[in-house]
Parts: sequence; structure tokens; C-alpha cells
Amino acid sequence: MILDELTTHPGEWLRGTGPMSDVVISSRVRLARNIRTYPFVSKADPETRDELCELLRASIKSASKDREWSYVDLSPLDELDRQVLVERHLISRQHADGDGCRGVAFSPTETVALMVNEEDHLRMQSIRSGLRLDEVWQEINGIDDLLEDRLEYAFHPRYGYLTACPTNVGTGIRVSVMLHLPGLKLTNEIERVFRAARELRLAVRGLFGEGTEASGDFFQVSNQCTLGRSEEDIVNEFKTQVLPRVIEYERQARQALIRDRALVLDDKIWRSYGMLRNARTISSEETLAHLSLLRLGIHLERMNAVDLQTINELFLMTQPAHLQKMLGHRLTGEQRSAARAEFIRKRLSDRRPA
Amino acid sequence: MILDELTTHPGEWLRGTGPMSDVVISSRVRLARNIRTYPFVSKADPETRDELCELLRASIKSASKDREWSYVDLSPLDELDRQVLVERHLISRQHADGDGCRGVAFSPTETVALMVNEEDHLRMQSIRSGLRLDEVWQEINGIDDLLEDRLEYAFHPRYGYLTACPTNVGTGIRVSVMLHLPGLKLTNEIERVFRAARELRLAVRGLFGEGTEASGDFFQVSNQCTLGRSEEDIVNEFKTQVLPRVIEYERQARQALIRDRALVLDDKIWRSYGMLRNARTISSEETLAHLSLLRLGIHLERMNAVDLQTINELFLMTQPAHLQKMLGHRLTGEQRSAARAEFIRKRLSDRRPA
Repeated sequence: MILDELTTHPGEWLRGTGPMSDVVISSRVRLARNIRTYPFVSKADPETRDELCELLRASIKSASKDREWSYVDLSPLDELDRQVLVERHLISRQHADGDGCRGVAFSPTETVALMVNEEDHLRMQSIRSGLRLDEVWQEINGIDDLLEDRLEYAFHPRYGYLTACPTNVGTGIRVSVMLHLPGLKLTNEIERVFRAARELRLAVRGLFGEGTEASGDFFQVSNQCTLGRSEEDIVNEFKTQVLPRVIEYERQARQALIRDRALVLDDKIWRSYGMLRNARTISSEETLAHLSLLRLGIHLERMNAVDLQTINELFLMTQPAHLQKMLGHRLTGEQRSAARAEFIRKRLSDRRPA
Repeated sequence: MILDELTTHPGEWLRGTGPMSDVVISSRVRLARNIRTYPFVSKADPETRDELCELLRASIKSASKDREWSYVDLSPLDELDRQVLVERHLISRQHADGDGCRGVAFSPTETVALMVNEEDHLRMQSIRSGLRLDEVWQEINGIDDLLEDRLEYAFHPRYGYLTACPTNVGTGIRVSVMLHLPGLKLTNEIERVFRAARELRLAVRGLFGEGTEASGDFFQVSNQCTLGRSEEDIVNEFKTQVLPRVIEYERQARQALIRDRALVLDDKIWRSYGMLRNARTISSEETLAHLSLLRLGIHLERMNAVDLQTINELFLMTQPAHLQKMLGHRLTGEQRSAARAEFIRKRLSDRRPA
């Protein structure tokens, strides 16, 4: 089964590489599209949804013929497998929890994912590690072109692409980056930066997008405005006006910590290592908070007992569904916390502590 | 200087040996005595105090002629050196903070300590690791006899030995044990045990006796009643009626933890190890709390990354004065916390983690 293979390695976006990867975890562009003459998903009866699935799956297959894309039909999938896809950011929580015929197609490195029958008929994303907005925009734009050759999108000459939710009408684009901002968090400046972001009409969310809490100092920042401007303008403004400032603020905060509070910083980083290396039971939330500090420590060259690859692997594999998938059976919350602690300990003890 | 030699090794009472040493850190008997015709210390003018010092020092020297006892004159000693003696339980905090001519004589293994001009003219203690009340009582009783041959104690035929504070009148005896009760603490039963102890007219105090808070699950339990009964009766009641019950309760609590909450217990123990092994700054209070859990882990055979000897050494050496004495210079609180963390890390990394 394709999902069993997936769970053993992180997707490209979690590689921790790419420009500005000390602050920018990943860059993502998503497009929302609907098929002309079909009702929106929320208005479609089961038969229509089936028909849409067929149509879109065939078009995706045809458009991707030279690439080895996987297609996963979500409706027969059990909850654990759907959760694996959410944890890998291949589908949204809403898509996992939805009903009726729906699915997702994705590329081998998971940089491209196309959700069928989510809120819109088609939600296409490209996601890559580091700050690479041009690249992900070009990639998803190319795929959009290929599909547009095969499908008739619902498009209004004045409003642009029509979408189930009016907030997406126009370009249907959402540009977002996952930022790692432990410096701003530790210096208590994060709220100030978020206020500035909101004034620029940007949304700040948690690890899993809409409706999720920020945890472990990871934040998703995205545009809210999709109408009246070109996709390139939206990507460009995001890339040139918003991000350089946030990245600069975060880097300054980190340098201030090293300058003024190095001991306290090292203490936090190394205690996180101590917790992960010794805990016998640990929640995913606490794990994330410690991994966040280790990641900071590695980028600031204050942590040498663990490398970035291990952090990224733990980041992915300690999530509830991945953990259960890896162990091959379902676990209660308590069992998960013990299994998570054991997995982390083993993974970290492969390396000698400094 | 005698104090520099002292700081590098723990006294006998901290060896972690002796009967019931899983629960009983140490046993101690103290006697309060005053010299006839001299006013109590608080009423004595400087000349009288000097005279008392001379008299007592000479008597102690004569009584201990075959033993290599040290005598330390406290008045010329700086605050750090006095604090070292407090941390070793050779003198009380009041004695360290007092003024005028005063001192302490102690045996090479520090099982016997005789304070001169503390609250009473003479406060004599014998202290040993584990539950050894008969032994310490016999030892201090023998020394008391030797001194009584050389000094005329203030003694009233009806009231017994006269003391500066009426709570000590009669036998002048205080029997106390230092208990390690992490099991009762973790199972939230400690207050119930303390209430029972208070009903038996016992005092429960912290690590450094009167006026100190219990920390790291270490508690000093002692008799309060000194009048109207023989010393042997007081020691015996303490030994046969109070202690066996408390020790039994603590052992039951530990077994209950292993039976019902082994994972949480191991998690606490190993996280304590992780903190000590990785912290870059740590207070003496936090250190004590972690050492307490490691001590529990060793006795329950759930911690193999560190041994009892190391715990006892850290217990002593991480205290503020010992730490500064070892490093050879005075430190601010912040510097101490960093130096303490570094010392602990080095000491623990001598051993391979499990």
C-alpha cells in the first residue's frame, strides 16, 4: 500500500533545505478551481460527486502522464490513513473529515498535491522547503495550464475563477509560508510582528492551516486577498515586502538572544535535548516545542548532539498517525506518548551526545 | 587550611549506607549543655564568651586526646567558610550567623561535632548515615561523659540539665533523622504522615533544621519533648514507634508507584537525569529536586546511568558554599547556577548513559 511507503521518509518540503531555511520551513502556493456546469461540492449530490471524481482523476492522469503520480481515493480509507495524509500536508483536515467521493493526487517527492472534491472541485498545491515562492508558483501554474487544456474551469470574465467560498474568488490563489520564529517568541516580540502582518491583510495560523493553533513556534503566514490583482503581484508582494522583514526580525531576535542571554538560550536548547533523550512519555505538543528549540540550536550552531535531518524526521514521525503507522497498530493516547518517547530516545541515542 | 580539605569529600553521614538507607539518610542525636556559674551565651559579655571558649576548647582537647579532632574558631572565619560548615551539617545556621567567640570541634569523619557558644555553651551531636540511633546515642553519650568529668554542667536535681531555651531543659536531647520521602510526596500522602508525626509531638523540618523549608523530598523529623523521661526512652520511642511506620509507609508508596504508575515514575526519574545532564544553568533547589528523584530511581533499580556515590557527592558539592570553595572564588547567584550546571554535567558525563 502506497501509504505504508510514505510514512518512512519526509516529503521534500520537510528537508530543511532551500533559501532562508533557518527561518522559512516551506513555501506553498495553492490554487482553487471548479468545473463549469457542475455545482459546488457542498451542493453536489453523491452521483455528481462521483462523476466529478471520475472526470478529475482522468484529467489529472492524462495531464501527468510522464510523471509517476499517486492517486489516493479517500472515501474507502480508514481514519488513520487519512490522518497520515494530513500530517504530511498532502490534504487538509477538512478533506480528511469530509464525506463522499474525494481523493488526492501527489507527486513522488510530494511537492505537488491535487485535492479532488475538497471545498472546491480542485485544490492544487505546490510546496517546497525554504523560501522558493517563484518556483512553487511556476510549478503549480504549469500544472494548472495542463489541466485547463483538459477541463473547462468555472470562470467569470469580470470576477475571475469562481470558488465555493467568496474569499477565494478571482485568482483562487493562496500563497503561504511556514515560518519558524522561536527567536521572536523567546524575546516576546512575536505579537508585534503578527499585528504588523494582520495590518498587511495576512493571515497567521498554526502548523495545519485554518483553525489550528500555532505550536512549537511554527507559524503559517498567508495572503487573504485573491481578487483584483494578478497572481504574480500577490506572490511578489508576499516575497518582497512581507517576508524579508519577518525573516530579518527573527534573525535579529536570535542574535539578540546570543548577545544578551546566551546562557539562558543554551540552557533551553540543551534541556530540550535532555527531555527528548530521556523522557519515558511525551505528548506530540511537547515534542514539537523541544524540536523547535533544537532546530534553533542547530541553526545558531549551539547544538551539536543532533542534526537537522534527525529533527525533520522526528518532526514528521512523532505525529500521532505516523507513529501508529510505523508501529503497525492503533494505540491509545497514553500508549502513543510512551511509544513516541521510546522512538525519540532510540533515534537520538544513535548519535553520541556532545 | 582545614576547610579546603573538607570540601572535596562528603562526611560519613552522606555516604548513603547503613540500615534502611533507602529511606533514612542519616540519624543524629544532639545534647545541649551549659557550664555552671557562667551566664547563658545570650547573656554573656564578650570577655565571658572568650573565657567559655577557652575553657570548652581545652576540655574538648583533653577529652579527645587520642582522636584527631579539628577545632575551628568561627569568629575570624569569612562567611563562605562558615557556610561550608553549615552545608556539611557541622554547625547550625544560627551558629554561622552569630557573633563573638564561638567555634566547633569535629572528628575526622565528621560523625561528631561539638559547637561551642551556640545557643547553649555546648551543643554536641553525633550523626551517621542510615538508621543508627543507638550508635549515635552511645557515641555522644560517651563524649558527654568524658566532658562531664572535666566540666561542671548546669544541672538541677529536679529539672535536669538547664538550657538557654526551656524547650531543651531536662535531658537536653534532640533525636532526629533525615528522611527521604519521594514516594509519599508523589502519591500525595506526605501531609497525612506529617499530621500523624505532629500528633506524636514530633517536629518536621527541612534539610537544615529549624526554620528551613523541606526541599527535594528530604525531611528532618525530630522529638520536641526533652523533659520528664530518660534519654533512652526518647531514643527508643523514636526508633520503635515512629520510624518503622514512616519507613513502611514510604516503601509502600514506592511499590504503589511501580505497580500503578511505573511509566510516569520512570519518566520523572529519567527527565531529572536529562535535566542534570544537559542544563546550562540550574539552581541548588532544582538540583536537589532532581537528585532526589535519581536517588529514588537508584533504590528502585529504575536508574542505572548514575550511582549513589555520585548522587551523594553532587548533593554536597552543588551547594552554594561548596561550589564556590571548590572553584576557588566567590560567584554571584547567576554565576553559581552556571558553574553548578557545568560541574554536574562533567560529573555525570564521566559515566556512559544507559
